[in-house]
Amino acid sequence: MKVLLSHGDGGRATHQLIKEVFQASFNDVELDKELDAAILDQQGGRMAITTDTFVIRPLFFPGGDIGKLAVTGTINDLAVSGARPAFITVGFILEEGLELDTLKQIVQSMARTAEEAGVRIVAGDTKVVEKGKCDQLYVNTTGIGFCNEYIKLSYQHIKQGDRVIINGGIAEHATSVLAERMDVPLSSNVSSDCRILNGIIDQLLTEFHTIRFMRDPTRGGIATTLKEIAEHAEIDIWLEEESIPILPEVRGTLELMGLEPYYMANEGKVLLIASEEESERIVDFLKAIPGQENASVIGHVSNGEGSVFLKTSTGGTRILDMLSGEPLPRIC
Amino acid sequence: MKVLLSHGDGGRATHQLIKEVFQASFNDVELDKELDAAILDQQGGRMAITTDTFVIRPLFFPGGDIGKLAVTGTINDLAVSGARPAFITVGFILEEGLELDTLKQIVQSMARTAEEAGVRIVAGDTKVVEKGKCDQLYVNTTGIGFCNEYIKLSYQHIKQGDRVIINGGIAEHATSVLAERMDVPLSSNVSSDCRILNGIIDQLLTEFHTIRFMRDPTRGGIATTLKEIAEHAEIDIWLEEESIPILPEVRGTLELMGLEPYYMANEGKVLLIASEEESERIVDFLKAIPGQENASVIGHVSNGEGSVFLKTSTGGTRILDMLSGEPLPRIC
Repeated sequence: MKVLLSHGDGGRATHQLIKEVFQASFNDVELDKELDAAILDQQGGRMAITTDTFVIRPLFFPGGDIGKLAVTGTINDLAVSGARPAFITVGFILEEGLELDTLKQIVQSMARTAEEAGVRIVAGDTKVVEKGKCDQLYVNTTGIGFCNEYIKLSYQHIKQGDRVIINGGIAEHATSVLAERMDVPLSSNVSSDCRILNGIIDQLLTEFHTIRFMRDPTRGGIATTLKEIAEHAEIDIWLEEESIPILPEVRGTLELMGLEPYYMANEGKVLLIASEEESERIVDFLKAIPGQENASVIGHVSNGEGSVFLKTSTGGTRILDMLSGEPLPRIC
Repeated sequence: MKVLLSHGDGGRATHQLIKEVFQASFNDVELDKELDAAILDQQGGRMAITTDTFVIRPLFFPGGDIGKLAVTGTINDLAVSGARPAFITVGFILEEGLELDTLKQIVQSMARTAEEAGVRIVAGDTKVVEKGKCDQLYVNTTGIGFCNEYIKLSYQHIKQGDRVIINGGIAEHATSVLAERMDVPLSSNVSSDCRILNGIIDQLLTEFHTIRFMRDPTRGGIATTLKEIAEHAEIDIWLEEESIPILPEVRGTLELMGLEPYYMANEGKVLLIASEEESERIVDFLKAIPGQENASVIGHVSNGEGSVFLKTSTGGTRILDMLSGEPLPRIC
């Protein structure tokens, strides 16, 4: 059997690959984890570690570039795990012939993003491969953060009646990248939501105490991320289509491409599961932050067996499974 | 200006790239560091972090494979920095069409090596790129270790009269990989020295107290590594050609390929700089460990300005500079 593009889409095939190949050999409990980062007990407290490789094409897209994305993605993985990001490492693979100016722009973008987030880039590595053995530039970032000992996010804290909250419009990142790649007409207003979230999440966790769980819906989109949560927590999630924020230009561009917003990657969004009581206050708090004005409660939790249901605007109900089948390669 | 293969060879061009592109933007003090890992003060003690990407071709070579190499390389970088390796993350880039069995073999090899070293693989990521956008498989490993508070290795501790020690024959890794790639006749006995060193280094640091500094001479070989040490410490290093261990089959194969052993990568070797008094005892200690029988004092330190001299067996003296010019791509 061979590796397929769908093994990299973050959906069902990726999960299968992780289970069959990686978990079979890397039998550390942390790999079977619920969070986007491994949480490890150390003498000095709890530490979070996460790693991510970025192979996005094109390198520059509306709203960002591979450098900003690589630092943002890793910072957000730590933040949604309840950790304060502290250190990042950077590992480049460069294709022979890449313009040094391109590399410099990307490196500067990484430095700016890390500085904005208050994170230190502490180690790096560079490899060069022959022309045709890479697509310009790939980069790995690995992040280390430290956990507040009072904050423990877990699937297990999710209860019937809890609300699902998102901090703004969905599908903006993947839509901007795919539209750029496919040269879709009239898509020029669509910009990636690529944005660091550690500051906002830090404020939320200080202000509110019934946040059960968080995840950033990147590869596979909100459908795949919520399906993972529902399966692990052994609950059902009910989404209201009309409540899910989506910019008209994103919706229009996706319709032209024949793609569904629920499966499109986001790079500046967080899905929060919190108590019904606090949920509206969380949304109001978010809305007061510039760029988070479209925050919304988009659904709720019920007892169940791991399904995600979408109540459509026409009154129907759809089941949302993980992304499977049609790969959307290299959007991150 | 464009990226050249020589930017990845670990020699002069790599140093220039790091200085001009990375240090210009990533202005964290840790990046201008002397060690192979960033050492960071944390509330729980000192932590070491290192990252390395592996693009070796072929994936399997005599004595190892990319998986064993990727775990070994990162563990050794932590160990020579005086840290006990604890955690490793793994980030794969897979080419569409790669055989899953190949991936499984490599993953199993990583798991075995980590287990042997007592290191936990705690986080992972996988991306898939289209056929022709990668050469089968690339992998990043990032390692985190913890430092013994009593051990501080530094260039600054190196003194006139100190001895340079190596734990065995040089050039075995690069020679085995290049011979395999070029199909060199009669090279079948040459095997990579790829081997984890954390156990041995831990013993050395417990037993001996005048070890000033350590480095693993990987990309660029012992010449490049010692030149870096000499420049940073502002000393000269004098090597005795006759004392440098090199297996006859390695020497013969390199002669056939027209390559110099001093610039060839090692993956199971450590260069130690220690006091004259302890140096012979360190060598005896090493020789008693299986696989380290060829350990030897290979040179000494004198006051100077950053040169590495090689006293040849014919009585001459050569200056060894960093690798520059002829790239040896993808040996790690």
